Amino acid sequence: MKTKPFTIHKTVSCVFSAAALLILATDSPAAQITSDPLPSWNDGPAKKSIVEFVTKTTKSGSPDFVHVSERIATFDQDGTLWVEHPMYTQVMYCLDRVGTLAKEKPELKHREPFKTVLSGNREAIAKMSKEDLEKILAATLTGMSVDEFRAEAKKWLANAKDARWKRPYTELTYQPMKEVLAYLRENGFKTYIVTGGGQDFVRVYAEEVYGIPPEQVVGTVGGTKYGYDKDGKPFLTKEPKLLLNDNDAGKPEGIHLMIGRQPCAAFGNSTGDRQMLEYAKAGSGPRLSMLVLHDDANREYAYGPAQGLPDTKVGTFTQALYDEAKQKGWIVVSMKDDWKTIFPAGTSLMPTGREK
Amino acid sequence: MKTKPFTIHKTVSCVFSAAALLILATDSPAAQITSDPLPSWNDGPAKKSIVEFVTKTTKSGSPDFVHVSERIATFDQDGTLWVEHPMYTQVMYCLDRVGTLAKEKPELKHREPFKTVLSGNREAIAKMSKEDLEKILAATLTGMSVDEFRAEAKKWLANAKDARWKRPYTELTYQPMKEVLAYLRENGFKTYIVTGGGQDFVRVYAEEVYGIPPEQVVGTVGGTKYGYDKDGKPFLTKEPKLLLNDNDAGKPEGIHLMIGRQPCAAFGNSTGDRQMLEYAKAGSGPRLSMLVLHDDANREYAYGPAQGLPDTKVGTFTQALYDEAKQKGWIVVSMKDDWKTIFPAGTSLMPTGREK
Repeated sequence: MKTKPFTIHKTVSCVFSAAALLILATDSPAAQITSDPLPSWNDGPAKKSIVEFVTKTTKSGSPDFVHVSERIATFDQDGTLWVEHPMYTQVMYCLDRVGTLAKEKPELKHREPFKTVLSGNREAIAKMSKEDLEKILAATLTGMSVDEFRAEAKKWLANAKDARWKRPYTELTYQPMKEVLAYLRENGFKTYIVTGGGQDFVRVYAEEVYGIPPEQVVGTVGGTKYGYDKDGKPFLTKEPKLLLNDNDAGKPEGIHLMIGRQPCAAFGNSTGDRQMLEYAKAGSGPRLSMLVLHDDANREYAYGPAQGLPDTKVGTFTQALYDEAKQKGWIVVSMKDDWKTIFPAGTSLMPTGREK
Repeated sequence: MKTKPFTIHKTVSCVFSAAALLILATDSPAAQITSDPLPSWNDGPAKKSIVEFVTKTTKSGSPDFVHVSERIATFDQDGTLWVEHPMYTQVMYCLDRVGTLAKEKPELKHREPFKTVLSGNREAIAKMSKEDLEKILAATLTGMSVDEFRAEAKKWLANAKDARWKRPYTELTYQPMKEVLAYLRENGFKTYIVTGGGQDFVRVYAEEVYGIPPEQVVGTVGGTKYGYDKDGKPFLTKEPKLLLNDNDAGKPEGIHLMIGRQPCAAFGNSTGDRQMLEYAKAGSGPRLSMLVLHDDANREYAYGPAQGLPDTKVGTFTQALYDEAKQKGWIVVSMKDDWKTIFPAGTSLMPTGREK
């Protein structure tokens, strides 16, 4: 509670500056202000590096000019484009789905790890092993048709709310990153999500939330099986067969599989993005690799353990990654210092809780 | 030899009409002629169905209007966009590569199926089993870096020539289908190749040849492995691990994996495309599914065995598929009757051989 006045102060200031920008953007004589493509970014090396990168790669005659067909930018999702703490949204979906599943298959009520999930014991759920979590993911993400899954996930996303902000998860996106997406697209870049999350799950909302169509979402993905319903109509069933684990080295592998070009800009926030950033940076010509550091406990969360921030299992950003970034010229974005606002105006300006 | 005069006559007539169209297109008062989006198609039900489909899906206010984000069209490659007889181009590449491979690994000279390939005995090569062919594909398409593969395939494509036309394979594309690609794209459709061929192989030339970028090529695809060279630079190695066999049911599965939307138009030429056409047609709203029938031995090839055409292992078009197409409203395109010309002007107008 003791930081509440500060939070409110910040919030009010955000509302004010957002409103001011809105006015300027729609009807302003001050063209030099409205032409700022990244209004939610504070002036500093991070913002400067983005603008310089876009300028030099798109300016005709520039020695660093990149042909429009090669303008590929890849973005991690959880923790880079939206909130991932205290737990990935998709995991929340899967845990919620266990209840529905147990109604269809009552025997699950007495079988682990489903029994633990159904107990609602948060501490026990948080302690579940990776294997247990994988069992839950397989049970809740496969076995149904692609269309059924899409409808279920869509319905859940429309109703579920984040416990801290009491807002739909789809509103907890980062405004500064949305501006980067829009800025890159306006300059001919094709923007992709490259996520450790489920490809089909992220596809459900990526177009509406980020303007990124399903065909530009690369994620952890399983196989499907083509079959027919009783009327002979074909449909695809989601199979528990992993094709790609789109984390770590899986990210460049997924980029090759789905895009077939080396990105010239990549954005992440955790060790799971290391290889993607390295891969993007390794190409010839101008390259931009960026890492978002969650160092803002007041406005969002603070975790690392880089730079003495609290350690976490969700979106780990190690000191080794931080040091590598500094050494190799990857830009580390401080949410606290580089971002004027965190969330889009009108969605999450009133945090009703704080990081635990 | 006996049809040569006929071939020449046809060829001359093609040159003439192509030249005439070129003149009309650049400087013509006859707007109604130049506005034909499919000049290499004869007037008939096939051409009509394409034009009607595009018109009704793109005309604002039409009850069949399709939002631009949903305008996805998928094309098989071998036999649909370019020549596949007497053998798929990629298989020719793999057979050619065995020679190079044997120089690097002399022990292959004494090991089957490499020994047979190196013998040059066409009859024995043609009789190779599926398993033997798979061994050759694995040996020539995997084990190298993605960049090395691309460079090798590119070099081969620049030099290799089709035995009948003495032309690079990349020139043996179908002009009428190129017009369909361009026509759809001009009307907001995103055009994809969905091929049983290797995704990485087709990506090497698809952009230059069809204007289809690597990220819009879906094919049979294996995994890659991320690693580092001696200088610590990252690269991807092509692994002999199959992720997707993009044939038959694998085509809709591949479409879901790579695109995530049901296409509203699909084009194929063989039983391997059946499920893709069925999948496209099964969606709601207007749909177009088309099959190219190779019934023109003079200008290209004739094979089926549908409609009494000679049977083949390469691009089989069964009578059952033909009957299903007729029953379900898929359009069968007769190369002989529907296409004014087969190849783009200036590339393959002078056939120096005929189908065996």
